[in-house]
Formats: sequence, structure tokens, C-alpha cells
Amino acid sequence: MENFIFQNPVKIIFGKDTISKIQKEIPQDARVLMIYGGGSIKRNGVYDAVQKALTNHKLFEFGGIEPNPEFSTCMKAVELIKQENIDFLLAVGGGSVLDATKFISASSKFEGDPYDILEKRSPIRKALPLGTVITLPATGSEMNSGGVITRAEFQTKLVFGSPLLFPKFSVLNPETTYSLPKHQVANGVVDAFVHVMEQYLTYSTNAPVQDRFAESLLLTLIEEGPKNITAGEVNYDARANLMWAATMALNGLISSGVQSDWATHLIGHELTAFHGLDHAVTLAIVLPELLRKTKNKRKEKLLQFGSRVWNINHGTEEERMELTISKTEDFFHSLGIKTKLSEYNISPDTIDRIVERFDSRGMKAIGGLQDISLVDLKDILNACI
Amino acid sequence: MENFIFQNPVKIIFGKDTISKIQKEIPQDARVLMIYGGGSIKRNGVYDAVQKALTNHKLFEFGGIEPNPEFSTCMKAVELIKQENIDFLLAVGGGSVLDATKFISASSKFEGDPYDILEKRSPIRKALPLGTVITLPATGSEMNSGGVITRAEFQTKLVFGSPLLFPKFSVLNPETTYSLPKHQVANGVVDAFVHVMEQYLTYSTNAPVQDRFAESLLLTLIEEGPKNITAGEVNYDARANLMWAATMALNGLISSGVQSDWATHLIGHELTAFHGLDHAVTLAIVLPELLRKTKNKRKEKLLQFGSRVWNINHGTEEERMELTISKTEDFFHSLGIKTKLSEYNISPDTIDRIVERFDSRGMKAIGGLQDISLVDLKDILNACI
Repeated sequence: MENFIFQNPVKIIFGKDTISKIQKEIPQDARVLMIYGGGSIKRNGVYDAVQKALTNHKLFEFGGIEPNPEFSTCMKAVELIKQENIDFLLAVGGGSVLDATKFISASSKFEGDPYDILEKRSPIRKALPLGTVITLPATGSEMNSGGVITRAEFQTKLVFGSPLLFPKFSVLNPETTYSLPKHQVANGVVDAFVHVMEQYLTYSTNAPVQDRFAESLLLTLIEEGPKNITAGEVNYDARANLMWAATMALNGLISSGVQSDWATHLIGHELTAFHGLDHAVTLAIVLPELLRKTKNKRKEKLLQFGSRVWNINHGTEEERMELTISKTEDFFHSLGIKTKLSEYNISPDTIDRIVERFDSRGMKAIGGLQDISLVDLKDILNACI
Repeated sequence: MENFIFQNPVKIIFGKDTISKIQKEIPQDARVLMIYGGGSIKRNGVYDAVQKALTNHKLFEFGGIEPNPEFSTCMKAVELIKQENIDFLLAVGGGSVLDATKFISASSKFEGDPYDILEKRSPIRKALPLGTVITLPATGSEMNSGGVITRAEFQTKLVFGSPLLFPKFSVLNPETTYSLPKHQVANGVVDAFVHVMEQYLTYSTNAPVQDRFAESLLLTLIEEGPKNITAGEVNYDARANLMWAATMALNGLISSGVQSDWATHLIGHELTAFHGLDHAVTLAIVLPELLRKTKNKRKEKLLQFGSRVWNINHGTEEERMELTISKTEDFFHSLGIKTKLSEYNISPDTIDRIVERFDSRGMKAIGGLQDISLVDLKDILNACI
């Protein structure tokens, strides 16, 4: 096992009828800005539940955060915060709303151009406190301290993070997910699945607790994910199990003491930046071909993943690895997600643009293993066509 | 899944050469009291490493915490704290030292007789901040907010806890465990194993993440525990994996959203209070017979435990349950731990004393499932002879 530091102070409030509990989690005298997305929370009752819980708070609101939260939208929220002397942020929505709220939190206290937080990775030294009510199991943003922000004018999608951005609390009420459309749930399952894979499918550091925890989450996503697909269906335990698995998939626990990768995400972010593809779709496209290209360095873990998660125990190593990867691909397909760029009308000319972009950033290889050269990257993207 | 609240703010600093890091974790101007046990840390280099790390701190020390930490010893530390205006506690040792330090932390700020914290469960409203350097994987005290204190004059062993007692940080350096004697490691493995069982082996709440996490820890303890037994042996990964499994076994994670029990511990604490048996030994004695007595209510989980942890998949339900329990017993034996009271020269007359004690506390049934009546308790203890 590798040395590590782990600390995650987020208070998780999980279960039915829990939104009312935010009342006691936010200081009584706070000036609260509720931040949300396109308005689905107004249709499913979550908006009303939040308003009711905060009747006795000074509450402002800012809606319209996009699925890939946009820098300029965040800047509008920062203006409002300064104008109204807001001192507590409440994100209500999915991972995009939460990521945006974290970025707004840091930006509203940042001296200089907040884009530096993304582009130059300028350190975040102050931030507004924030809480969340999560309504879409996917990104894990409710229990971590990072996020991703898009800036359309520059076609960038960049990550940021700081321990100051851990939510003070996150309410996870699985009932809020009943109304989610099928494709959003499917995206969430894939997102969480690939989060786990990024922290698991590298090489062994002899860390059986972390390995088995990762496999526990993958198995749960495979079993419980599909039960979540039907919008409107009351299947509380399936909703709860998916929600908890997605949260545990990216809160720092399973990455402690092991080697992470994140190459699939790095590539996927560029596909979203250039083509606006859903984040999870990009992951479902990239992961299988990335595994095929890099399987030799990842052989031990790939065989273990095949055996313990997909029950693949017979055949040559080559056969088992290929079956493992195609089972994973089939799982994405079973959720209704296509895994080829051409199926999204993306032509091969995107490949050179993406490779050039990494090259222009001075990157010779990508990912935590640094085992994917720009030539390999081109091969992977070619295979994704 | 049941509703739950989870929050665990402890900063874990895990790995080789990590003790020096405490320097930056403790406020520079703090008056620090280092609390330790019988002096093994002076022989294995941990005492020196702590002293060296805190060269520039105002450091006091208090040694002599017993294996079952004694109320009166804790009170002596409280005296020293008041006398020297100590404002930070550093526990260095195993779970007993950590539990004692937590109790000392609460007691030094408690108004009234600190024994009320134990006997009357008086609320803890203030506490001194504390950090830990753990040297024995077992109790999980390094990442939770509770403990157990013995008062020999009353033959009591009682639990306490408060969110104020979470360590600010815990250093987990597996190298510190090389010098542990075999029986202490074996006790630690059993302690962690039964911690998991208390939170897992009840009834299903349809919580597959928690179930699989629990099984992950049990499998790791079974595989890695025995590799830890030989004192002096340099087997870093085995030490690290046991240490992390023991920490994860009792930090609130696997109990979130599921039904816990703790009946084995309740009974075991009385055996220690009356006879001074090692804590883990009492658990190894009680658990198998408790499972035999209560197996029908726990059937689903017992069969799942047998299948997923011991690979028991054939035979009638009765046969599988009995094989599962006896495999568990065999595991304790394989670690060198005897599981019958008579093997520790404890005679049957202890049984009525223990039953009477629960009766005198007004308890009609014990454990989280409330499925063990005092008549059942007597049967269980009789079977333990």
C-alpha cells in the first residue's frame, strides 16, 4: 500500500424526508443563496421542500446552471453574491449544480480573475461555506471538494479543487430521483462506474480493502443501476443503493493508498469541450478502447476485475481480458448508451484536434500511470470512431 | 436501507515514516500531554520518534494506561492537565491508550464527577482536542469518537462517546506494529473481526454497499491477519492491510443505514469486568454461541456471510449455518485464541452474576435486535463454558 492522507469532513444526511433537516445545518442568521439548474426541482417538489425548510432564513436564489456548468454563468452568481452580501451557498441539483456552486464559492472570495483557478490552477485560499441537496446520483460532488467547469468561448473544460470546498453537509434523499429521465440515470450509473475504474483499474499496490471496496461499488452499480432506469418508479432501495454507491465512488476513500489514473476523464473532458457530449457518454466511449490499448500494463487488475466483478475465470489471459472489456461495454449498452463517436455524428477530424491540445499543454503522456503517449492517445481515439 | 447521518472528520495520516508529521498537526503554541501505556513504545522507537517530532512543542507526558484503561488512572491524568494547563492531548499506543485519552479529554472539561459520563451517560459538552499515534490495529478508536473505561472497584466496564472526541488526526504507521507480541496481534484481528460482525450479522436492510464493504473487511482480516502474527517480521503490506481494515471496521461507515447489534460486546465487557479477560478473548468466546442461539432471526445474513466469506454454498440451511459458525470459531483458534470459558479457568457461577447484572440494569433483552432475552443470555453463557 502507498502512503496516503485521508480526511473527509462532509456530514451526510441520508434518507427519506430529510430535506427539512437543512434548516438546522445552516446558521440561522446566514444570508443564503440557493443555486439550481434548469428548473426540474420545481417540478419534482424539491424546490418547494427547500423553500419550506428555510422559511426562517434570509433566502436568495440563482437558477440556470447548465449541465456542463459554464464559467460565465458562475460569474453572474458571484455578482449577485457580492451585491447581496451572501454568506452561505446551498446547491440543489445534480453534480453540475454542485460543481458550479463550489466554483462560485471559491470565485466569490478570489482576488483576481477566477479563471486562473481553472487555467493556472491558482490556489484557493478562501471560500464561502456551502451545503448541498443532491438530486442525481452520479458525480460524487456531494462528498468531495472538487469540480469541473466549462468555458464555452475557449472550448475548455477544466478541473479545480480545495479542501475548503467540501460541503458542510449534503442531503441525499433517494426519493428525489424518482422523476429523473432514463438517460440521466444511465449517465449517472456510467459516471460512478468509471469513477471507480479510474481509481481501481491501474496496477496493484497490494491493498485488498481498497480493491474490494471498489469491486463492491462496481457490483452494486451493475445490480442496482438498471433497477433505477424507469422514471417515476417507486423503488426506494434501488434508488438509495445507487445514490450511496455513487457518493462512495468519489469521496477519496477508495483512492487512498492506491494508484489512480483519470486518463479516461482527461480525454472525455476534451470530447465534451469540443462537441458538447454528455460527460458520462464520453467516458463510456473512451474507457473500453483505453483498456484495450493499455491492457498489458494493467493485466493483473484487469484479470481481477474480470474474475471478481464479471465472474470471468476461464480462457487464456488474452481471452479473459477481451471478454472483461466487452462485458463492460455491453453493460453501458444495456443502459442505452452508445459507445462509438460515429454514433454521435462525430467525425475522425476531432482526433488530431484533441491530440494537438494535449501536445500544446506540453503533455507527452497522460493519466496517473503516464502509460498513454500521444501516439497511443491517437490510436485509442481512432478505435473509438 | 435505513435513514442515517454519517460524518467522520478524522484526518488519517497513513504509512511509513509518518510520525514526524504530527509536528504540523498540533498547534505550535499548544501545551501537549503525551499519553501512553506500559512503555512498549520506549522499546520500539515510537516514543523517541514522537519526542523528536515535538522538539519545538511544550511537551508533558503521562504513562501507565492499563490494557483495560482504569478510571482512577485517567483521573490522575486529569489532575496533571489542570495543574499544567494542558490544551492538547496526544495518545500514543493501542486502543486502550486512545480510549483513555478520549475519556481524559472529556473528563478534564467536565463539571461534576466524570464517572457520570459512564454510569449516567451524562452528555459531554466540552473536550480537549486530541490526536493519536496508533501502534496496534484493533479497536478502531483512531477513527471514531467513543471508548470504553473500566472501574475496577465497581467491576464495571462502560462505554462513552461524543462527536467532540473524534481525534483531530491519527497517524497510522504500520511499521510500529512489527514488534507486537503474537497474542496482541491475534486479539486485534479478532476485535476488528467482531466489530464488523456486530454491524453486519443482523438482518438485511437491502444495503449491498454496506454488506459488501463489511465482507471486504472480513475477507481481508482472514487473509492478512495471520500474516501479521510473527513478531519482528518485516511484512509491510500485511501490517498495513490489517491496520487499515481495523480502522475501517469501526469508523461509522459500515454501520450507516443498517441494523447493528453489539450484543457480543455487551456480554464480553461483563466477562472482562468480572474476570479481567482480554477484550478480544471475550468476543471470541461469546460470538459463536450467540450466533448459534440467534441464528433463525439472522438466517439470511448468516447464510450470506457463509457463502461470501467462507465460500459455504452446499448443504441444508442448518448445515450451512453451523459450518459457517464453526469456520469462524476455527479462525479464532487458528490465531491461538481459545473460545471456552473453562479454558480460562472461569467457572459456571459467573453466569448468574452476569445475568443478574443485566437484570439489575432493567434490561429485559440485549443487543440492537433485542432478540436475546435474559433466558437466552443464560443459555448462551452456558454454551460458552
